[in-house]
Amino acid sequence: MTQRYIQAKRQCQPSPTKVEGKPLISGMRCSLMIFGTVCALTMTQSGAHAQSNPDSALIRSIYDEALANGEAYENLRVLTKDIGHRLSGSSSASEAMKWGRSILESYAADSTWIMPVVVPSWTRGDKAESKTFGVPKDRSLHITALGGSVGTPNDEVIRGRVVVVKELDELKRMPREEVEGRIVLFNRPMDPVLINTGSAYGGAIDQRGSGASAAAEAGAIGALVRSLTHALDTLPHTGALRYKDGIERIPAAAISTVDATWLGRQVTEHPDLEVSLQMNCQAFDDVEQGNVIGEWRGSERPDEIITLGGHLDSWDIGEGAHDDGAGIVHTLEVLRILKAIGYQPQHTIRFVLFINEENGNRGGKMYAKVAAEEQASLSKRYVAALESDAGGFVPRGFRVDGTDAAALQVQGWAPLFDPYNVHQFRRGGAGVDISPLKELNPRPVLLGLSPDGQRYFDFHHSAQDVFENVHKRELELGAATFAAAVVLLDQQLPIQSTPD
Amino acid sequence: MTQRYIQAKRQCQPSPTKVEGKPLISGMRCSLMIFGTVCALTMTQSGAHAQSNPDSALIRSIYDEALANGEAYENLRVLTKDIGHRLSGSSSASEAMKWGRSILESYAADSTWIMPVVVPSWTRGDKAESKTFGVPKDRSLHITALGGSVGTPNDEVIRGRVVVVKELDELKRMPREEVEGRIVLFNRPMDPVLINTGSAYGGAIDQRGSGASAAAEAGAIGALVRSLTHALDTLPHTGALRYKDGIERIPAAAISTVDATWLGRQVTEHPDLEVSLQMNCQAFDDVEQGNVIGEWRGSERPDEIITLGGHLDSWDIGEGAHDDGAGIVHTLEVLRILKAIGYQPQHTIRFVLFINEENGNRGGKMYAKVAAEEQASLSKRYVAALESDAGGFVPRGFRVDGTDAAALQVQGWAPLFDPYNVHQFRRGGAGVDISPLKELNPRPVLLGLSPDGQRYFDFHHSAQDVFENVHKRELELGAATFAAAVVLLDQQLPIQSTPD
Repeated sequence: MTQRYIQAKRQCQPSPTKVEGKPLISGMRCSLMIFGTVCALTMTQSGAHAQSNPDSALIRSIYDEALANGEAYENLRVLTKDIGHRLSGSSSASEAMKWGRSILESYAADSTWIMPVVVPSWTRGDKAESKTFGVPKDRSLHITALGGSVGTPNDEVIRGRVVVVKELDELKRMPREEVEGRIVLFNRPMDPVLINTGSAYGGAIDQRGSGASAAAEAGAIGALVRSLTHALDTLPHTGALRYKDGIERIPAAAISTVDATWLGRQVTEHPDLEVSLQMNCQAFDDVEQGNVIGEWRGSERPDEIITLGGHLDSWDIGEGAHDDGAGIVHTLEVLRILKAIGYQPQHTIRFVLFINEENGNRGGKMYAKVAAEEQASLSKRYVAALESDAGGFVPRGFRVDGTDAAALQVQGWAPLFDPYNVHQFRRGGAGVDISPLKELNPRPVLLGLSPDGQRYFDFHHSAQDVFENVHKRELELGAATFAAAVVLLDQQLPIQSTPD
Repeated sequence: MTQRYIQAKRQCQPSPTKVEGKPLISGMRCSLMIFGTVCALTMTQSGAHAQSNPDSALIRSIYDEALANGEAYENLRVLTKDIGHRLSGSSSASEAMKWGRSILESYAADSTWIMPVVVPSWTRGDKAESKTFGVPKDRSLHITALGGSVGTPNDEVIRGRVVVVKELDELKRMPREEVEGRIVLFNRPMDPVLINTGSAYGGAIDQRGSGASAAAEAGAIGALVRSLTHALDTLPHTGALRYKDGIERIPAAAISTVDATWLGRQVTEHPDLEVSLQMNCQAFDDVEQGNVIGEWRGSERPDEIITLGGHLDSWDIGEGAHDDGAGIVHTLEVLRILKAIGYQPQHTIRFVLFINEENGNRGGKMYAKVAAEEQASLSKRYVAALESDAGGFVPRGFRVDGTDAAALQVQGWAPLFDPYNVHQFRRGGAGVDISPLKELNPRPVLLGLSPDGQRYFDFHHSAQDVFENVHKRELELGAATFAAAVVLLDQQLPIQSTPD
């Protein structure tokens, strides 16, 4: 590819406000009707209009600042390489809290504080081994404990035949003797044909979240859960399980997709095959850590709060680079960018580095609890909240939790974001940390940043969620998109966010 | 990130036709006015409509086939790993032609043939060295010859002081004695704030294409050109230069961005610093290779041809994986997918693996020459052409070369592509190989696949343009998007493509 870009360049000289590209149709009025969607478009030369529109120029300055002087990537390097992974309750999570607060201070937040949150404390241990016996050659499987799993009894090896299922319900229909004393392999892959990889993840996650208890209920002694990724790799991808009350807690591990596929086939050919499992995970008493908060007071409506954030904790393998180091540095970068371009917010903006999203969401719940109290006493009003917790990939759009009117208002931003290739406006799933704010009355509008999701689960909760797998420009574009949404909310609020 | 996806999943159970997600606004009529763009939307529940719309179901089946049974990734592995890079005129380019034809045959094209094309033959040689002298420590620079460069005289070392410029015009304004006998470093970076990386490339490419002749005209003995990438890395990125007629041909090399940045600073501090350059590139007589063509005859309009393709040749470093192995396997996969889902085209579809895009575009020119003859004799009509030559990344949309009416018709596909996150409809730059078809009368509508471009120039024309840097799902989504466009054109043609 050579000449096409020269040609594209000719058609697209950078203007003083850097308006790029050409609209598809210029100066033409038209009407389209396609499967129930009627869209009447009048598009004129967007360049001239964009330059004269103050929001458009403001947004351009945000992207310019992010791409020319961005600090998100260097901040992410420090968080992932100097501090590393940071599971709730760990000393590195405490270190990350100190670091995050220091950056908020260096970016001149008006005030910073820690909102105390009591979080669980659990360690993976140094042993997670699983082997097969009875197939041509004994083989080690790539596994790691699911978050919150118990270890094997007395940290010793357990061993049993293998039951392979794709659905939890299959276990209920099996005679007890076919499961008792065995190890269950949950082997349903993420659906490859779903475009939204998050939907594919959601469609397979019952195995990880509830598989161990379903297996125990049927009499099994352990569970192996196929890693939640589309990739065929040898990485186990961890994540939280939830034990059901009153059911025996059996050890459960994530197994790589390559090993799960192989083991599933082997069990068909060699039904007597046995698998061993040994893990020494441990749960400890809860400890106090907290949400790190920076505040920038609004000039016009200081008691009305726009919250934005990501989560500071991560799983304890890899470096939590996409999940959710990216969201943390996006959040910090919004403060830096808006100060750098001389923006003065009307509303108070809260930058929140939440704790404990991965295994409890206690940070998000505590933040909402305090918010509900302040809102009830009329001392504060929480008008909007934004989250970045879907990776550092190229931004595609937003997810909105709110009324139709709120969704419509956000959809109205589409022309402003089109020059930045941000086009997706979908509903639901704005973010775990901010989701407890839905309980407030009146309820804030919730927005989630939607980066491209095709690569996310390659890295998610695995040893490969590291700094090297985050792309500098993509991270910067995400930060700019996040910042632009904050500015648009700041200027357009109040948005009607409670159903009539 | 955990619960958000469970929530998203609940809102989005896969339906028999796999319609995903929820429109942002349902059952609501609204009107927006934002900086000159008026868009009146009536969106009803898209799910039901999508299922009852035949185009929508057809497109869903294309994506399903690509994602569930795709062969593009394995084809790319063979092309890049078993065959490797394939510069025009090389034996590996000939091998790639045989391979491409065999795949077209195995996918049951009605006929396949080679359209002969005489292509240039040039070799990089085994020596490309550049060193600095006169700074604290002598240092080797990461360089590689620009494509088509002459070697250094007698393949021996040349050496001179360094002139650093950012614009070609600066050389014209300099006194001759300040350039004569020296080596020019063209050191203007790609503009980081342009969102479209292709525009940033287009804005810097004059240095690579015309720098050597501009330097020679001013009396220089050699040229180093800052690599065309946003990344700060130690990879030289090659690409074609064009010597100006009547100007001495001096050797020119790409230098990595890290080295160019360092060297630029050193020259400021140490103006007497010298740089050496040695290269043994060689040009040979032209050789005959060709465009590989597969044809699938149309049922209704067999003499009307939809052409689609990418280019089989690549630069001779790396593996030509994104540029343009991806376009080649996209093209082959369209044939496989459409056969697999039982599609019967109305128009004849031509699958063309073009030769010599990188350093001459003689394949594209020859194809257009034959097309013009056939169209003039009324034996065939070339109604549309599509190209994939912008990488194997997640597809974002299309570029259209055609009339406003054609652009409008393509823009009308937006609702059909929205479930696949394909939203960008821009004009211009559909593709180098198909661009000579613009000369036909009547002129075919030209469409280029637009994948996300943020990572493209990390790899482009460098040793890192390898299979490992292509993502399986992203490649598959690109193939499906390409196939869907072919089907929509097949059903909607004729599109008015010649200006009134």
